[in-house]
Parts: sequence; C-alpha cells; structure tokens
Amino acid sequence: MAEQLVSVEHVLEKYIPAEELQEVWSVLYGRKLRCLELPGCAVDSASQHGFELKGYMFDAASEQLRKPRAIRIGLIQNKIQLPTTSPVAEQVNAIHRRIAEIVEVAAMCDVNIVCFQEAWTMPFAFCTRERLPWTEFAESAENGVTTKFCQELAKKYNIVIVSPILERDESHGETLWNTAVIISNTGAVLGKSRKNHIPRIGDFNESTYYMEGNTGHKVFQTAYGKIAVNICYGRHHPLNWLMYSMNGAEIIFNPSATVGELSESLWPIEARNAAIANHCFTCAINRVGTEHFENEFTSGDGKKAHHDFGYFYGSSYIAAPDGSRTPGLSRVHDGLLIAELDLNLCRQTSDKWNFKMTGRHEMYADELAQAVRPDFQPNIIRE
Amino acid sequence: MAEQLVSVEHVLEKYIPAEELQEVWSVLYGRKLRCLELPGCAVDSASQHGFELKGYMFDAASEQLRKPRAIRIGLIQNKIQLPTTSPVAEQVNAIHRRIAEIVEVAAMCDVNIVCFQEAWTMPFAFCTRERLPWTEFAESAENGVTTKFCQELAKKYNIVIVSPILERDESHGETLWNTAVIISNTGAVLGKSRKNHIPRIGDFNESTYYMEGNTGHKVFQTAYGKIAVNICYGRHHPLNWLMYSMNGAEIIFNPSATVGELSESLWPIEARNAAIANHCFTCAINRVGTEHFENEFTSGDGKKAHHDFGYFYGSSYIAAPDGSRTPGLSRVHDGLLIAELDLNLCRQTSDKWNFKMTGRHEMYADELAQAVRPDFQPNIIRE
Repeated sequence: MAEQLVSVEHVLEKYIPAEELQEVWSVLYGRKLRCLELPGCAVDSASQHGFELKGYMFDAASEQLRKPRAIRIGLIQNKIQLPTTSPVAEQVNAIHRRIAEIVEVAAMCDVNIVCFQEAWTMPFAFCTRERLPWTEFAESAENGVTTKFCQELAKKYNIVIVSPILERDESHGETLWNTAVIISNTGAVLGKSRKNHIPRIGDFNESTYYMEGNTGHKVFQTAYGKIAVNICYGRHHPLNWLMYSMNGAEIIFNPSATVGELSESLWPIEARNAAIANHCFTCAINRVGTEHFENEFTSGDGKKAHHDFGYFYGSSYIAAPDGSRTPGLSRVHDGLLIAELDLNLCRQTSDKWNFKMTGRHEMYADELAQAVRPDFQPNIIRE
Repeated sequence: MAEQLVSVEHVLEKYIPAEELQEVWSVLYGRKLRCLELPGCAVDSASQHGFELKGYMFDAASEQLRKPRAIRIGLIQNKIQLPTTSPVAEQVNAIHRRIAEIVEVAAMCDVNIVCFQEAWTMPFAFCTRERLPWTEFAESAENGVTTKFCQELAKKYNIVIVSPILERDESHGETLWNTAVIISNTGAVLGKSRKNHIPRIGDFNESTYYMEGNTGHKVFQTAYGKIAVNICYGRHHPLNWLMYSMNGAEIIFNPSATVGELSESLWPIEARNAAIANHCFTCAINRVGTEHFENEFTSGDGKKAHHDFGYFYGSSYIAAPDGSRTPGLSRVHDGLLIAELDLNLCRQTSDKWNFKMTGRHEMYADELAQAVRPDFQPNIIRE
C-alpha cells in the first residue's frame, strides 16, 4: 500500500450508512467528538497553502472547585520541501518557511501548544548510514538557528513550541542526540528531552548517529499544562509512557517518523493505549511522503539496494484518557490537527478507572529489579 | 449501543468495496490472515448447537534449526444458560453442559489449548454486592467440581484447559479469589494464577469479594507452549503483561467480563497493544449477553436502582506479536474462535523489533522504585 488510501476514516464515512457508521465509529474511535469551529481566515489560509486543517473538542464533566482547563494543541505533519540533494541551509530554510505558514494558522485558531514532527528540519536520512551532509543538520538545542526561529514564533504568537531536532551537544564532545526542545510561550527555552529508546529495525539503526537519551522522563510545566515528549520508537515501550505520566504529564507528544510496511497497523494502537493506560492525552505525529536519497543503500532484508525506504503515512492523531481519539490527518498531505482539550479529563478519568491506584507499582519495581539481574530465572511452572 | 451491532468487521465487509477494504483492513487489523479449514462435522455441530465458529492462521517464516511450532488455541465466549434465580447447582451444571458441547467442537478442530471466559461457571454477579448465593459458586481450584469436570475433558481430548473460576481457598481461611486453573492435557492440575489487579470501577468493586492476587506472574510450560493468564482488569496494566512476558509467556490469555458503555472502545486496543509490546500472542475473551438479577442495586452513578448492569459485548479476539489480529467473534452470540499459531513468530518478532533488548528495564526498575517512595518528587521543569 503506497499513497492511494487517503485515510481509513475517509473510507468509512464514504461507504457506511449513518446509523451503522455511528456504532462502528464508537467501537473504533470512542465517543464522537464535536468538531471545533475554526475561523474562516484560518480555513482559507490552510487551503491557500495546501495543507489539511482539522479541529476537534475533548470536553470533560464540570467540577465545583476546578474550572474547565480548556487549552488548544496543534500537531503538524509535513513533507520535506526541497530535494535531499539541495544545500543543507536551503533545505532547512525551506522547511522553516513551511512551518511558519502552518504555525500562523495555528495561531489564528488560538492554539496554545504546537508540536512538530521528529527531526523536523531535515530528511529522515538515517537509513543511509552516511554522515555528511546529514550530520550538518544537527544544531544546538539551546541556541541553534532552529531554536532561535522557534523562539521568535513562540513570542510572536504567545505559543508553546515542541521542536524535535537532531541535536549537536557541544558541551559533551560534540555528540549527537535526537532531542525535543521545549520553548515556552515567553520565548525562553524551557528545557530539552531526548529520545529514550533508539530503534535498530529495518533501515533504522539510528544508533549509527546517536545513542539512548540521558534526560530521563522530565515533564515541563508550561502556562497551559504539564507536557512531556516521548520521541518515536519510545512509543513501543509502555514503561516510557508510564514514567512520563508518573512525573505528572497531562499531554505526552510522540513526534515520529515511520513508514507503512513497518508500522502502520501498530500506529493506531500504541499511542492510544498509552493515553488509556496512563490517564493522559497522547499525540502521535508522523511525517508524510517518500524521501529520495542520491546514493543507494541496503537494508539487511535481502533486497536490492535502493534510494528510498518507504512511504511516511502521516495519520497524526490525538488520543484521550477515556479512550476516544480524533480521526487521523491524511496519509498523503501536510496537515495541522487541532484539538481543544479540557485537561480536567485526565484526573477525572484517573479517579474513575484508578489504574495508578490499582497499579501495584511497588510489586513491579521489585519484579523488574529481579528480572534484570543476570541470574534471573523466569518463573515457569512445569508438570 | 445495545445488541444491534453484530460486529464492526461485519459492517466493514458489508459496505466497503473489495479493493478499498483490503487497504482499510490492513491498517485496522494488520496483515490479512488465512482462514483455517475446519472439518465439516465441527461446522455442522456448531451450527446445530447455535454458536459461532471461526478459524484463522498466523504463520511465521521458516527457520533452519527450529521446525514450525504450529499449535491451535480456542477461545470460548458464552452467555449464562439459566436465569440467575435458578438453583446454584443447576446453573453450574447447565453451563458445564454448554461448555462441553463447545469443547467437543474444539477437539474436532484439533485445538490444543482452550480458554474459557472469566468466572465462567456463574453470572457475573459482583455488581450486586450480595454474598449469597453468589459466593456458593466458589470452588476449590485443586479439586472442585469444575476442576474435575475440566480434568475429564482435558484427558478425553488431550487438550490443555484454562479454567477461570471463583476460587474458595480452603487452606487460607476460606478466602475467595478470582483464579484461573491451568489443567494439563494429561488431566493434571498444572497450577493456578490469580487476578493481579482488582477493579473498583462502575458497578464492579470486586474487592467486595476478593483481593489482589498473590500468585505473581507465573508462566505454565504446557505440552504446546508457554502460557500465562492475565485476568480481566489486568489488561489495563501494561506492567502486568510485561512481567508475564519476561517470565517467558508465548501466549497470554485475558479472560474477561466487561460491558459496552464502560470499555468497548478500549477493548480492541489493550490486549493487542500488549501483543505488540511484548512480542507474544494475546487472547481477549469476553462473555456475551445481559444478566438480570432479582434484587435491584445501585451503581454510584446517580442513576436509579436497576437489575442489570449492561451488555457484555463478546468480541473475543486473538492478537499476534506482529500487530495483526483476528476479527472478533460477534457481539451477540456464543462462539468459539480458533487460531493456528506458529509460536516461532514470537522470537522472530522479538529479533526484528527488539523491544526487550532496547527496553532499558534496569533504568525503569530504578525509576519505578523511586516513584513508589512516599517522598517521591515528580521531575517537573518550571520556567
């Protein structure tokens, strides 16, 4: 399956009669979400700039002592803008310009927090195993050109930005990291969060470039709620989500880059399961399109050398603690997915389902400590 | 939504044209599974006894040093057979007879391991908070009438049986437990595994009757593979699945009892996510129908007292480590879901995706040990 399917939701809505669609939808996607009314200027601008714009609303019950904490978040998925053979600085500038267009529309829609896709300033070139020119896309998290670009946007629009980049850590031997920079709506760099789990699958042995992150499971208290970033392959690891949640995250962003043959049937499951299991919102973001590289490379799969490694299927979505989720953005177009979240839903769901209260974490801390010992013997009962 | 929807898959197949259905299916359910050819006598018998019979095949790549380890498992979902006001012994006998019919068909289909639904000998009466007569359904795991019944079936058909019952533990103060008894194909009781996480949600505060299990995360080495049992509410706890997997489980059964309004949109997500995250097969089993109780009860939800607590939506399914899954059994009928699994797929998927290798369990053992301390301070970064 390459580009032909726009989205599963599109097909369901096209063919299934309304009454049955309602039932199917509620099993597949949870409660039906209301659409957000977005301003005409935003809709026009998105249309003019050729990207999809969708908005949904997750409400919560009203409480006596807490007001609703309705905030708006925006997820951006996009293709690279120039051929991968273009000069590095031109590629970066072109993507910056594209993102500026989309963030402007997010601002028109009163978005408070926006998150870009993984390694958003560059092609996802880690399949090539070549260093130059790809490592030239790496930047300082604290004062690289991309962080400066984001700081300007953040101040201009009073918006929090999660900016996942390839980081060059000049203070530690100029090592590379896969890092999300969190920029406050004041324009200050609030901090950074590194990718905790590094894939060695298919074309992606990313440990060719960077290793497992050492920033733990930080949560960032922004003006609009407590957020965390679980980058890409970390979505396969339930403990990763759990520890962000234990540190208080109400929204966990999952900026990713993943292709169809590898992961598409896992995509709707994992981030959504994490929202359910941890009583928080999760945001799965994937890039779009096929990226071609000049030099051919092999994939350890017995196939011939090739110049691309598959189709990034977009399909970015937001999942809520109650198991409901938005439809995905399309599989084929750039897009901006907006949702208004009442963050009170997190604690309300936790008080209802009690997964942390009933989690027996003390038992698991012990069992896991046993399981990692070199002399661990699995608990197997034999006849 | 009550009984009207037979299944999501049924609606998809009814309305969506073949070519698009193939694409939608592959996103929603993973690779298309081949149907198992089942013997005519089994098909006839299922039809005659009024239950659904479905079979699928999960294959794996061939290896040089290991032969395929193709085994067949059967999941049974069913309604209770008599009104809940009938004498206890009659209710149990009627369900025994029903299960004997279905297991006979499983045996015709060469099933090696069969698993029944949670507390399968009784109505799921824990919503009532009444003790008698419900606690009379409790039996000894080692030598109760139900275990004896299962031992006979196991020997007769050379089949492993996972029998989840309400257990009366006579050796420990006659306490009750929610327990799965594992019966070897030799007829021996291989052991038992208790429900690790007890729900306190909606109508179900099951800690009225029994507490969190104390049997840990045992895995049972049967003649047909290593199996474990994660009962019902434990499916919401990723660490529960993980520890069964760390102890070597290749198949984790999840016998459940859960109703539509509460959990139906979570149902397709959680067991399947566990199969993916742990490189094993998972089997989600839910009962079918609405169970009426003579005495009314309330649910702490502001609604009037009532005599039932909702519709058990069946939809039992099997998920594989590669993210593929069977369609569900129906939402409305008793059923037997059979799958042939090549268990080699577990290690093959683990070697491909490496979630255990990249899991950083040592870090999480430490972080979790910190997080459970009374003086734990969440790692929150503020501006």
